[in-house]
This record gives sequence, structure tokens and C-alpha cells, in this order.
Amino acid sequence: MASTQGQVIVCKAAVAWEAKKPLTIEDVEVAPPQQGEVRVKISYTALCHTDAYTLDGLDPEGLFPCILGHEAAGIVESVGEGVTEVQPGDHVIPCYQAECRECKFCKSGKTNLCGKVRPATGVGVMLNDLKSRFTVKGQPIYHFMGTSTFSQFTVVHAVSVAKVSPEAPLEKICLLGCGIPTGLGAVWNTAKVEPNSTVAIFGLGTVGLAVAEGAKAAGASRIIGIDIDDNKASLGEKFGVTEFINPKHHQKPIQEVIVGLTDGGVDYSFECIGNVDIMRSALECCHKGWGTSVIVGVAAAGKEISTRPFQLVTGRVWKGTAFGGFKSRTQVPQLVDKYLKKEIKVDEYITHNLPLSEINNAFDLMHHGRSLRAVIHMW
Amino acid sequence: MASTQGQVIVCKAAVAWEAKKPLTIEDVEVAPPQQGEVRVKISYTALCHTDAYTLDGLDPEGLFPCILGHEAAGIVESVGEGVTEVQPGDHVIPCYQAECRECKFCKSGKTNLCGKVRPATGVGVMLNDLKSRFTVKGQPIYHFMGTSTFSQFTVVHAVSVAKVSPEAPLEKICLLGCGIPTGLGAVWNTAKVEPNSTVAIFGLGTVGLAVAEGAKAAGASRIIGIDIDDNKASLGEKFGVTEFINPKHHQKPIQEVIVGLTDGGVDYSFECIGNVDIMRSALECCHKGWGTSVIVGVAAAGKEISTRPFQLVTGRVWKGTAFGGFKSRTQVPQLVDKYLKKEIKVDEYITHNLPLSEINNAFDLMHHGRSLRAVIHMW
Repeated sequence: MASTQGQVIVCKAAVAWEAKKPLTIEDVEVAPPQQGEVRVKISYTALCHTDAYTLDGLDPEGLFPCILGHEAAGIVESVGEGVTEVQPGDHVIPCYQAECRECKFCKSGKTNLCGKVRPATGVGVMLNDLKSRFTVKGQPIYHFMGTSTFSQFTVVHAVSVAKVSPEAPLEKICLLGCGIPTGLGAVWNTAKVEPNSTVAIFGLGTVGLAVAEGAKAAGASRIIGIDIDDNKASLGEKFGVTEFINPKHHQKPIQEVIVGLTDGGVDYSFECIGNVDIMRSALECCHKGWGTSVIVGVAAAGKEISTRPFQLVTGRVWKGTAFGGFKSRTQVPQLVDKYLKKEIKVDEYITHNLPLSEINNAFDLMHHGRSLRAVIHMW
Repeated sequence: MASTQGQVIVCKAAVAWEAKKPLTIEDVEVAPPQQGEVRVKISYTALCHTDAYTLDGLDPEGLFPCILGHEAAGIVESVGEGVTEVQPGDHVIPCYQAECRECKFCKSGKTNLCGKVRPATGVGVMLNDLKSRFTVKGQPIYHFMGTSTFSQFTVVHAVSVAKVSPEAPLEKICLLGCGIPTGLGAVWNTAKVEPNSTVAIFGLGTVGLAVAEGAKAAGASRIIGIDIDDNKASLGEKFGVTEFINPKHHQKPIQEVIVGLTDGGVDYSFECIGNVDIMRSALECCHKGWGTSVIVGVAAAGKEISTRPFQLVTGRVWKGTAFGGFKSRTQVPQLVDKYLKKEIKVDEYITHNLPLSEINNAFDLMHHGRSLRAVIHMW
């Protein structure tokens, strides 16, 4: 047991005091884990667009002040009462999508959307007492997505930590907390792409590139990458993209371009941007009779998708995915093993490594499209 | 062979000369079937909302003058060159959804939407010469949906006729040309409803009632019927509806009412009206994580469906169905056999029987919601 067990830990964390303001590094007090909770020493965290989305004030349910971050890896420092899933010293990936294995969602066999801790994580607190474990100068700081990995120590629900192989480098596998599984799972779990399928991917960021990688692994014969940044053409190729289209170089709506290129449309399409107009294009570039479009990107609050119902009546299917449909505690460790066996890429998504003190620079890099994943070294 | 083989037949047909005008009974000349075509003596035809939709001028692609009708049964009078699928005397159901078994749609194993004759049927003509087989006083009259069953004789493509058991009464099984298969198939083929599922059905007309019947057969535990006509409560019960809701008796949006009644939403919902706002309600009354909504109704031209993408990202699936996903030539005969074995209802949907001369009254009955199916006796 760590000597800090049962005690408040004071450590560094990047705090978001209000929307649209840079994070500031603070000394944060992290309370001990209560019943069903785990305190994790975060070794490395990456940034993801959902962090930026909340920081930019686009999420009307975003709560401030908070500690953002949800794509990370670390080591269990101590556990609360009744926790048997992990113990101090275990290497873990905090999972914003919990897996309790008891609720009707987990038991359904149809979804990865566990409902157990949602009522608490949705409002920035822990389930046990509906309070935060973070304090700065006496002021409680909200949790974020049940993970809050922009802190050197965080407290998460035991149903929200995946125990992974200690052989895997934490500075790499932190990426398996969000973006890569989301893309791979959208292909493997949600769309269930078959060999020889044609695939269109809108947006070649980390998630879109992971979709390409997943589609290649699934045996897709054509993987069409669509992005307004021409630099993504050669990048996409490394992840499996076989054809690149920049919509800016075409007069016609992009869905018409794709339908024309593919004898009626693709078998599967993936929207990895979060733009509702592109979501429509992604649906409408699908083949009549069977084309399936998966929404992966997160749209701004209040935005709506639309199409003519005829698109669906003639056989297209519109669905979405969260964390790629992966059951977090069960399947994240399997993804780590796949990485160790070199069956999936991870290192290739890391474009920057930065200390915690430069976390605001990492947000800038992401906003300007100059990074795939920036990994923050927490210590 | 019939003595009329190879000759023009003059018979009665209800002609739609222009939108929004009553049909008029005319002497129509029906040309002999050409290569790959079949001339059918229509014994009985029913009316369906798609006929009314086109007659009301709501379909911008509707062509006039035309002979409407697509839910019928009859007997093959003669066949054109190369036709081996049926022969004179065969009892048949004309199918607006063809099944050629050769095109990429038919071969895909994923859809019933055959593409073979669409280029012709979509513009009111026959594929062989892109002309009509109907003439009134020298003027060509367009075909409709490749069936035009409001004529005592019609010409259809051989890939669009289902040969059925001669034991089945034509005045009943004519209904298996559209509405009943659409409802049953939406449940069995498109949604694939499992035992113990909860189901919501919006609109309890013929299609909605067939959905209820299909859901009951599939073992659904709760079948919630939604209609603004309270008379549908007792009617629905006969077809399997277990709970009836009239949205007019509720203050809250109907999707909220249903979510409240079902601990989070239904497993499957079906929109059987053709109203895009109801299509949204149908999606949003589905359970997070797995709820699937099927659009069955045909919306007015130009109308669009919308929702927040969050609905799909959190696991709901939006799809649609045409002819219930049934492969017409293969499966309509199977449905007729099921009817003969009393495994599916047909008689129960017939509320009126009328002669061809009263076909405009049948439209009135449908418009006023006073009929389920009115069967027109063509002779």
C-alpha cells in the first residue's frame, strides 16, 4: 500500500476555471477514494477534441471550474472500500465509458453504454456522495467525464478503470482511452465492415485515421478519405486510405462525387468531424439498399441532422457510436494486448510530447490541425 | 392460350387524367405484352395511400394521365417473348417491387430493392421500348409503379409478377400486393424484432396493424399503438396491440410519454403514417443503446426528417423499409401460403367491397379514415 493511502494528496493539475480561458496549473488537493472508487496516479494524458469542445464553452452542460482530460494512462495509487477490480500498482486506463456489468445496459448484450455512474459523472461529481474529490484553495473543482486526467492524481469509479498489461508503455497506450478505440470500434463493432467493402471516411484526424486502420484490418477494398487539408492525403495512406478527396477541389456536393466514383455509393461511411452537414453527406453517399452511415463525431450543442426520409426508406441505415461500441473494462485491455502484438498502431498517432506546463500549447496545436495526438507528460 | 393473345384488348380502366381530379372510367386499349412482359387480367384491386398521394398531386414525379393501382391480384392472360416465369392461367400478384435475381441489388443478399426495371417504371413506361401499353382514344396513358392495377387488364414486367397458389381467393390475397407485407416485413425483415421486445407503432391503418400482427407473431411482449383516432384502440387489440395511446390526450410530446411508460423507451418503433415530425418522435421514443426506429410511411415530397445526432451516437438506429424488405417474386407466394394456413390475417383488413364504377368512393373512404382496405371488384 502506498504511504499516501487514506490521505489527501496535493499535486499539480491543469484547471479550467471558466470557458474560453487557458488552463492554469494549480496545486490541487485530491481526496482519498471512497467506496467503489480508485485513485490513480496519471502518468500521461493526451488531448482530445471533446476537451477542447467543453473548454470552448460549446457544451451547454459543461461545468466550471473543472479538471478536463479523458485519454490517459496511469498507475493505481489506492482504492476505496469494496474495490476488488484493481489494486495499488496496477497499470490502468481510466475510461469515460464505464462498464459495471450489472445495469440493464451492460446486461443487454446490445450496447457498451453502461448507465451505472452516469448520473454522477454527467454532473461532475462522484456517485458515492455526489461530491467532487478535487479542491483548490478550499473550492471544489468539478470532475469531467468521470476521468479528469489533466491532474497528476485523479479519482475515478472502479467501474471506470481498465486494468492493462504492465508491459505496455504508458506514454503510448494512454491513447487507447478514447480516439483510437472510437475509430476502430466504429468499424468493427458498430458498422461491422465486411471484407471487400467500400468505405468513406469524412475527416482524417486521429479518429478518422483509426477508422481507416480498422477498415483496412476488416478487409475493405476501397477506403476513401475525405478532408479539406491536402496534407492528409499522404498521411491517410499510412493508415490504409486508398483514395483521397478534398471537397474543396470539387464543384459538386461531395456525396455526389463519391456516388459517382463508386457506382452508386459506398457500403459504409463514417463522419469523424462533428459537423451536421457532413453527417448528411456521409449518409447520402451511401449505396441504396444497404449503405450504412455511422456518426462518430460530436456535433455542437443544438445542431440537428436532417435528410429526406426516402434515403432511409430506400435502404440506408443511420447509426452512431460512442467509444466505438467497446466495452471499456473488458476490451481496452484487449486493445492494449493487440498493440503489444503490433496488431494495431498507436505510436503513429503521437505527433507531440509536452510537459504539463505546456498543456495550453497542446490545445493550440490541436485547434490549428497541426497535431494528431499531443501526449502530456504529467511528471 | 387465350384467344386474345397477341391482340389489343379493349377493357375498362379508371384513368387519372390529372392531379386532384376524380378518376374516370374509360375504355382503354391494352397492347399485347412484349419481350419480358406479362398481360394480367386483374380480378381485384385494393387502394393504398400511395395511390391517393399521387392522385393528390403530392408526388412531384407523378405523371398524368396514368392508371393508378398497385395492390391487386389476377390471372395471366398472355405472356411476351422469352417469358418463362409464368404462363396464361397462372394466378398472380403484380409487384411494384420487382425481383430480377440478376442485378447487383438482387444478388447482394442485403436488399429487396431490385434495380432492373426501375428506369422504366419510374417514368411510367415499359422497359422494352420505353413506351406505354395503355391507350385511350389514341392517347398514351402512363403506367404507375409498374403495376397499374386499376385496369381490367394491365401489362407488367415478368420480373414483377409473383405466381401464387390457385387455391387462394383472389378477392382476399390482392392485399398481399402492398400494405400487409409492408407491415409484416418491417417487423420480420427490417427490424428483426425479437421475443419479449417492446414495440411502438405510430398510425394504426392497414400497415400499422400489420406491424402489430407481425410484432405479436415475433413474440413482442408490449405492443403500443399510437393513433389520434380513439376508435383504433379496440381495432388495434384485434391485431395484437396491447396498449393504446392517443397523443391528443397528453400534454407532453408523445415520445416523452412513451419513454416514461417503458423505463427509457421501446426496443423498436415503426412510423406508419408518412409524417416527418412523427418519424422524429418514433426515433426519440426508442431506448438508448439499442432502440431501432423503422420508417415505413411515405412522407410528402420535399419534407425532411431531423433529430439531434446525439440520439444516434447514444445507440439508436434509424432505418426504413420498402415493401417490408420482402423479395417479391420469392416471398409473396410464401405469404399467400401463410394466409392459406391461417398464419397471417388478410380478410380482417377488408372493410369495404366496391365495384370499379365506385372507385372514387373508395378514395373518399380512405381519406376520411373510414376504411382499412376497400377491395374493388374489377368485373
